[in-house]
Amino acid sequence: MPGNTFGQAFRITTFGESHGGAVGVVVDGARPGVEISTEEVQKQLDRRKPGQNSVTTPRKEPDKVNILSGVFEGKTTGTPILMILYNQDADPSAYDDIKQMFRPGHADYTYLHKYGLRDWRGSGRASGRETAGRVAAGAIARKCLEARGVSLFAYTRVAAGITCDTVDTSIIENNPLRACDSDAAARMVTRIEQLKDEEDSAGGIVECMVQGVPIGLGEPVFEKLDAQLAGAMLSIGAVKGIEFGAGFRVADMRGSEHNDQMDESGFVTNNAGGIIGGISTGAPIIFRVAVKPTSSIAREQGTVNLEGKSTRIRTEGRHDVCICPRIVPVVEAMTALVIEDHIKRQAAMMA
Amino acid sequence: MPGNTFGQAFRITTFGESHGGAVGVVVDGARPGVEISTEEVQKQLDRRKPGQNSVTTPRKEPDKVNILSGVFEGKTTGTPILMILYNQDADPSAYDDIKQMFRPGHADYTYLHKYGLRDWRGSGRASGRETAGRVAAGAIARKCLEARGVSLFAYTRVAAGITCDTVDTSIIENNPLRACDSDAAARMVTRIEQLKDEEDSAGGIVECMVQGVPIGLGEPVFEKLDAQLAGAMLSIGAVKGIEFGAGFRVADMRGSEHNDQMDESGFVTNNAGGIIGGISTGAPIIFRVAVKPTSSIAREQGTVNLEGKSTRIRTEGRHDVCICPRIVPVVEAMTALVIEDHIKRQAAMMA
Amino acid sequence: MPGNTFGQAFRITTFGESHGGAVGVVVDGARPGVEISTEEVQKQLDRRKPGQNSVTTPRKEPDKVNILSGVFEGKTTGTPILMILYNQDADPSAYDDIKQMFRPGHADYTYLHKYGLRDWRGSGRASGRETAGRVAAGAIARKCLEARGVSLFAYTRVAAGITCDTVDTSIIENNPLRACDSDAAARMVTRIEQLKDEEDSAGGIVECMVQGVPIGLGEPVFEKLDAQLAGAMLSIGAVKGIEFGAGFRVADMRGSEHNDQMDESGFVTNNAGGIIGGISTGAPIIFRVAVKPTSSIAREQGTVNLEGKSTRIRTEGRHDVCICPRIVPVVEAMTALVIEDHIKRQAAMMA
Amino acid sequence: MPGNTFGQAFRITTFGESHGGAVGVVVDGARPGVEISTEEVQKQLDRRKPGQNSVTTPRKEPDKVNILSGVFEGKTTGTPILMILYNQDADPSAYDDIKQMFRPGHADYTYLHKYGLRDWRGSGRASGRETAGRVAAGAIARKCLEARGVSLFAYTRVAAGITCDTVDTSIIENNPLRACDSDAAARMVTRIEQLKDEEDSAGGIVECMVQGVPIGLGEPVFEKLDAQLAGAMLSIGAVKGIEFGAGFRVADMRGSEHNDQMDESGFVTNNAGGIIGGISTGAPIIFRVAVKPTSSIAREQGTVNLEGKSTRIRTEGRHDVCICPRIVPVVEAMTALVIEDHIKRQAAMMA
Repeated sequence: MPGNTFGQAFRITTFGESHGGAVGVVVDGARPGVEISTEEVQKQLDRRKPGQNSVTTPRKEPDKVNILSGVFEGKTTGTPILMILYNQDADPSAYDDIKQMFRPGHADYTYLHKYGLRDWRGSGRASGRETAGRVAAGAIARKCLEARGVSLFAYTRVAAGITCDTVDTSIIENNPLRACDSDAAARMVTRIEQLKDEEDSAGGIVECMVQGVPIGLGEPVFEKLDAQLAGAMLSIGAVKGIEFGAGFRVADMRGSEHNDQMDESGFVTNNAGGIIGGISTGAPIIFRVAVKPTSSIAREQGTVNLEGKSTRIRTEGRHDVCICPRIVPVVEAMTALVIEDHIKRQAAMMA
Repeated sequence: MPGNTFGQAFRITTFGESHGGAVGVVVDGARPGVEISTEEVQKQLDRRKPGQNSVTTPRKEPDKVNILSGVFEGKTTGTPILMILYNQDADPSAYDDIKQMFRPGHADYTYLHKYGLRDWRGSGRASGRETAGRVAAGAIARKCLEARGVSLFAYTRVAAGITCDTVDTSIIENNPLRACDSDAAARMVTRIEQLKDEEDSAGGIVECMVQGVPIGLGEPVFEKLDAQLAGAMLSIGAVKGIEFGAGFRVADMRGSEHNDQMDESGFVTNNAGGIIGGISTGAPIIFRVAVKPTSSIAREQGTVNLEGKSTRIRTEGRHDVCICPRIVPVVEAMTALVIEDHIKRQAAMMA
Repeated sequence: MPGNTFGQAFRITTFGESHGGAVGVVVDGARPGVEISTEEVQKQLDRRKPGQNSVTTPRKEPDKVNILSGVFEGKTTGTPILMILYNQDADPSAYDDIKQMFRPGHADYTYLHKYGLRDWRGSGRASGRETAGRVAAGAIARKCLEARGVSLFAYTRVAAGITCDTVDTSIIENNPLRACDSDAAARMVTRIEQLKDEEDSAGGIVECMVQGVPIGLGEPVFEKLDAQLAGAMLSIGAVKGIEFGAGFRVADMRGSEHNDQMDESGFVTNNAGGIIGGISTGAPIIFRVAVKPTSSIAREQGTVNLEGKSTRIRTEGRHDVCICPRIVPVVEAMTALVIEDHIKRQAAMMA
Repeated sequence: MPGNTFGQAFRITTFGESHGGAVGVVVDGARPGVEISTEEVQKQLDRRKPGQNSVTTPRKEPDKVNILSGVFEGKTTGTPILMILYNQDADPSAYDDIKQMFRPGHADYTYLHKYGLRDWRGSGRASGRETAGRVAAGAIARKCLEARGVSLFAYTRVAAGITCDTVDTSIIENNPLRACDSDAAARMVTRIEQLKDEEDSAGGIVECMVQGVPIGLGEPVFEKLDAQLAGAMLSIGAVKGIEFGAGFRVADMRGSEHNDQMDESGFVTNNAGGIIGGISTGAPIIFRVAVKPTSSIAREQGTVNLEGKSTRIRTEGRHDVCICPRIVPVVEAMTALVIEDHIKRQAAMMA
């Protein structure tokens, strides 16, 4: 019932706040015998960590992962894998301000009202740092998927109102936005620098594609593959929407246009985004998620304090103007977790 | 692991195919002592049933619900509530055609590949008829929510490419589309009649609003309230996307614009759609779902047969041109199930 | 969270009270393609039904099962299987007495205090009739297990203080007690007839053996195979204890005596009862459950009424003197459910 | 599906092997605002740790717990609580022997066959050291229960064939066996010293009593309170059986004798052990678990090696002759987890 566990056959439990002792994850259900090294996990974490370039926050966090159980002689054993990233010491006095008032767009207000108290250092459990555990777990799921011939990658499709017209996957890891169109990427950077000067932030859209998914994944009727991916994506703090294939454009489409017809070579189109009736079709799975502008901005905003009185707040510190490039590995990780989970679930169904 | 159970503290399990003996639901966890009558459940089912008007399929199904356990002397007892709708006899020979080939946009192909066999009568388990069980269960959840002061309603915001400009809730139940703008509704009907003549179908967008939700619902980090609603909505067959509050428009927004600032009277705006950090803020919850055009169209389409050979298919029979008005009660039901579940979960967390 | 669902990969949800409209079960996760007939399910139900012989209650209930979904052309389809047994009309006025007071040993008192109200007709949800759904579901699990070479059977080892000295499986279904020693069985019958005359009842011990279980079932650490079987058995109303292999005798044993040593032909002994470290060893699984004397006895007993005042009660009606023979198929069903579930879970783990 | 998570509303996930980097637990769902200190958790862990006295293993492990998340300013925050105990460096070469063969009574054989590989250092995940995480989590559950007026304690009722005739709770923590009868305790120590000399081990029975449990806990029908306690207890490595109240003695009892009659002051007897129909009655909950003799004995035993060839093995090292006194805090911890979980679940049911 509490919400820190995800997945069924491949199951993770994350823990940790931005300013407690550590963040991390326990992975339960990874198949035994999979070779996994700290380096492979670290590689994914490095894609998520702050301070990668001018677009992301200049904060430096080493984010070094430690694997403390479940791996023996370089291989998973079938037992729970604990991966932990110790937090650096931070000066909590830096948070005196936000201790007394609620930052707009942040979970300060809702956490306090839900639990009756809150860890006001940084964003506590609602910090983006929580996703480090997800990315570490995703690294193991990816390793399992690779051996099955499943590959997946995400990229920024829209940022700061600028849209990528082409999808050039070769450049994704080579531009600060992890965008898929180099021309658009350049304009995004310019626009984001400008927003930084204006003490503001930008939203965007991240697209994800999964290839090599076997036909038949997804559990009708409530745990359809798209339902599970949607739940996974909306569990990422900054995500406000998801659409598969043709997505919201279906509102303007006819059935004769939207239906993916087939011929002897397979599906002629992929408006469904690779999932029909909640079950993977074998075509690539494609979906997009809406990423809200970073809530932390230096610009002054109106809010209330703990007593409910109106006041003004400026969120000092170094923040990501646009979180899209750092959301990309999180989207990939959550996708990998869902797919690997459902491969195992389908094995159970047919066993 | 199999996917026919939904919810944790308020949990439902649905069963049934379009042409088997029955469809229905077991509701487990409804609070004891709630007054519930067959009529109250039937009222919601009547909003979902076919044959309501010219927009929906002219098929006539009585869809009479029977409550066979868990209710005693007109009140819930805390034990499982079985609600069942017996199927009418149907002539399976009407399905000889689709027995041999896959209807585009339908789950015929994916079901067969997932399970190795399929019930080819109608759409089997993938039939929209499966949602009757959800609506019946939702009627009980609604009854619980009403006593808590929570109200919810959905309506068609866009259909057949026509958008409602206003939200006039008073007309929703009085037009065939369950649209929220009478002018738009009239144009939608005209457009849909035209599509019917063209043997085609139309998609749309359904919007849902929940009022009176207490602050604090949602279980970080994976079972955030929006994540759970997203999973619930994408579990509805025709739904291909969901967005909360400002939704996909966040891609063009700045943080200073998107952040919902507060003053002494509460949130000044509601771009978040009533959920921040995965927890309800107390503001109305607002989201929209993308509904694909009905897959069943009489117009001839290309497909393959069981042997994988290219062929042509026409899906005869009487189908909904636009499913939006019948999705509305399903969206409401799933929303009610999620909210009631999380009210109970929050009670457990704070107990 | 509510407790009417059991199992993970092979999952059942039961519903129904003794005097509502029906009792039954939804089975979710049975592998598709398994041939199953109403007759096969009925055969198991007939072993559980009342009125089989002089030892059990003379009440006559037809207990006819109806399969209303999830089976198509005689085979499971992978979708939920609804099996329902309609209740016969009963005269609720027969229960006026127990409406006002609590029967000793019954769940009347605890149900009322848990839920704040109760269905006082018969034993409501706490009726042994609830187990019909389990037995029906177990019939499907058994069918799956048979194809895997797993066989299981239970029998009365002790009843009314009389112990079977031998285990002659050939006679189990041929004596009213389902005992495993014909001499003991005869003495049990005599003793039970005597108790019936004395308006009293008798307890016993039921033993269960599972053969052909593959090595490796059970999920450390909390969902060990023995832990899951223990939870399954204690979920049967009349069961008050369980022990595996040497069981409670371990209190008097030495390690050198208890440890099951191995040689090239396998385990030399089976004190562990076929499970070590929570994982099946490949040796037969053997356990025993303690069955309490039937709570319903005609003999007058002390109790309190709804107002908490002391009073006397006689539970009229026709009751089983010793429930052991009717518990046997329930023990088998729950065992089959656990084993089939874990075979699927192991498939998921190793996938 | 994998088995390292326990509980629903109060949920724990344990991790760690005896010789990896650490063992520990993530606690999810503890109510926010509960004061908890490292010292309180450590106090319970010290009761479980090795080296307490002559009866237990002389191995010295500091077993110091670190709380790294979920507690802020001395109080639980509602977010996951990570508690971790780092393992001391150990010389794995000490395990060369058991790397090649299976120790009788140990999970070596079953783990290897289940997972296809195993961590052969110590007992890996099957080590009793895994229970440290349970005891740490239990310390938090106990703290919550204390505030609710629920108290619980366990003690050795039988060890090495010697039975306590009286239950003197005042001496439990003052004798090496945690026995409840000082005379019996003295004889147990003598007997165990003798068994140590004989390079052998002893089993026993641990009894647990819970007082102050509110009426109404337990979720019919599958998650009855006794079913959940049974599952919890059998998940402890050395436990081979459980019985509630009169337990296996019911086989010899009559209904008139076993039924707990009531009068105006409550239940006259407690043969049910405080649970009827799977729901707590308000009377003390009493159950006993069978604890097998320690599997690790120095005495030579027959086994097979990895190639399946017969061989002889001696398990060197310092082992507990009788594990009962160290099982006591584990039984208490698991009991506390179940009761706290069900208090929260009942709050959800009635919300």
